[in-house]
Amino acid sequence: MKFKSPPVNSLSLDFLTEFCISLEKLENDRACRGVILTSAVPKIFSSGLDITEMCGKSTEHYAEFWRAVQEMWLRLYSSNMVTVAAVNGSSPAGGCLIALTCDYRIMAENPKFSIGLNEAQLGIVAPFWFKDTFVNVVGHRVAESSLQLGSLHPAPEAHRIGLVDELVPEEKLKDRATAVMQQWLALPDHARQLTKTMMRKAVLDRLVAHREEDVQNFISFISKESIQKSLRMYMEMLKKKKS
Amino acid sequence: MKFKSPPVNSLSLDFLTEFCISLEKLENDRACRGVILTSAVPKIFSSGLDITEMCGKSTEHYAEFWRAVQEMWLRLYSSNMVTVAAVNGSSPAGGCLIALTCDYRIMAENPKFSIGLNEAQLGIVAPFWFKDTFVNVVGHRVAESSLQLGSLHPAPEAHRIGLVDELVPEEKLKDRATAVMQQWLALPDHARQLTKTMMRKAVLDRLVAHREEDVQNFISFISKESIQKSLRMYMEMLKKKKS
Amino acid sequence: MKFKSPPVNSLSLDFLTEFCISLEKLENDRACRGVILTSAVPKIFSSGLDITEMCGKSTEHYAEFWRAVQEMWLRLYSSNMVTVAAVNGSSPAGGCLIALTCDYRIMAENPKFSIGLNEAQLGIVAPFWFKDTFVNVVGHRVAESSLQLGSLHPAPEAHRIGLVDELVPEEKLKDRATAVMQQWLALPDHARQLTKTMMRKAVLDRLVAHREEDVQNFISFISKESIQKSLRMYMEMLKKKKS
Repeated sequence: MKFKSPPVNSLSLDFLTEFCISLEKLENDRACRGVILTSAVPKIFSSGLDITEMCGKSTEHYAEFWRAVQEMWLRLYSSNMVTVAAVNGSSPAGGCLIALTCDYRIMAENPKFSIGLNEAQLGIVAPFWFKDTFVNVVGHRVAESSLQLGSLHPAPEAHRIGLVDELVPEEKLKDRATAVMQQWLALPDHARQLTKTMMRKAVLDRLVAHREEDVQNFISFISKESIQKSLRMYMEMLKKKKS
Repeated sequence: MKFKSPPVNSLSLDFLTEFCISLEKLENDRACRGVILTSAVPKIFSSGLDITEMCGKSTEHYAEFWRAVQEMWLRLYSSNMVTVAAVNGSSPAGGCLIALTCDYRIMAENPKFSIGLNEAQLGIVAPFWFKDTFVNVVGHRVAESSLQLGSLHPAPEAHRIGLVDELVPEEKLKDRATAVMQQWLALPDHARQLTKTMMRKAVLDRLVAHREEDVQNFISFISKESIQKSLRMYMEMLKKKKS
Repeated sequence: MKFKSPPVNSLSLDFLTEFCISLEKLENDRACRGVILTSAVPKIFSSGLDITEMCGKSTEHYAEFWRAVQEMWLRLYSSNMVTVAAVNGSSPAGGCLIALTCDYRIMAENPKFSIGLNEAQLGIVAPFWFKDTFVNVVGHRVAESSLQLGSLHPAPEAHRIGLVDELVPEEKLKDRATAVMQQWLALPDHARQLTKTMMRKAVLDRLVAHREEDVQNFISFISKESIQKSLRMYMEMLKKKKS
């Protein structure tokens, strides 16, 4: 599955909705046992949540948007399919979350590409289930400082701290992802799926149990004037960068 | 303590029963403060649970067998003695569990020897307390992919991921295990035992609280025709290999 | 903030009380956003809890002392400030706890300096919240063997197992700590603080919920004749060492 939402594969409400529908189709297609997530946009895997969805919109819009983000994570983290992230570009915030949510992460070994949950740099706090997913992958100490600093780790560092499982030259990324997928698909589905569920259930259950509360938290946080202001400044900065 | 149940030290009901009785004797012997677990069978530490105990037997037999597996783990994981695994051969599935349950793991640095919880390869799911013990040793990310893939890690890789604490040349394994034991026995028993209990209590309590449920789960899983079939096929394959 | 309580910066009741007052002042001073903890005493960061406070005193004294230890940890682990430990000397037991409680640990790369929770060597058991803090930093496996052995890790080993984040030559320690502090202070306070709270809340809440129970445990443990005896022997040994 290739993300193709130029210019930066940001996770807009439309993108998320379409992503969930595609995932569901594949999930119900018995011929499809695995999915490789990668980007069709050069240098960017996904730039994360679309800031325009979080800026100057109504409470109802924020709620709808946040439920779509939750839905995407819930479906992907609990997927019965083998999920491999072929990270062929930078992957901040929500882009990093997508990679963390897969079974295996391979990244192009380009030190210009970076990955991380950098929410703190924007004055935002990553929600608890981003944090839980991150801790499951890199452990508590690394997660604690990385989240507090909002670190974007260049590919070699991301590999060193375990945030990605493997680095390969960019031109070999697709082949390697396919080889990894073959290796995972060699296992009997049923045992693999039950094992995955066993490993991830505690963290999945936690969001399911607090889902509406998490939506309300997001709304009240994102509606704050100070947060809106810092998001507007960030968007201005991005616009200037482009021009 | 040397495992000697040729040809492969598989954990049969008899073996487990005898193992628990021996452990209990040592536990109650105040002169015995530590035990080194190793194998008297060349190239195999332990091949894990005896598949013949899980194939074509009665529900009562499955229940009795599974309680014996639980009992072995409960006694060994909560042992007041210092427990050192001197892994002098391959150690799949239940063999790996025994090593994980010790305080310290030393492995012969022979790359032909491998160790891991490879249940998924047989279409079986490792129970939650195998998983909890594994996560305590190697962390969540490594446990998640290793369990899903049913990986058997060659000794050097097992060392790299922390599944064993140390590699030594095979001929030095015994001496090194003895030296490690001396180091651990230099500590005052009481503080060491309370510390061990503190570290392991949460995981031990979980099985104690769900023990009967876990037996029922095992029975209903192992009784499935599909599982019985795949175990029979696996046994056929082993027989052919031998001849 | 420099610890200056010669000869070894041991954590006496007076020291802890003063430390908590100083921390509170800084915490309430809006101009102060971070604190670097280091020692003014050569070769020792802090030698840990003052044994004279735990030896031959009244039950009331033990209770008061233990509450002060808890208070220090609760304040430091939940501090809104950025906390950096510049470990410029050895740091056993409670000294190690202080370092573990910070956001980031830099240690002088002198292999003669060591750090660890060595309580077990004195026949004492580290309380559960020392253990929780330790597990958050080094993970379960390393914490389990390090606590059971009461290991004091030389600086290079401490770095290898993740107990300290970074080693620098002793003469550069102050500059490096300042540079790290600048990096952390570049982040917006609010998001950083909320992230820290999210990461540490579970472990903090556990002590808050069991605080009085933990005091009683300490009193009954420390009042045992066997423990008192081993502490007296340890103090004798220290005195002989000095003379």
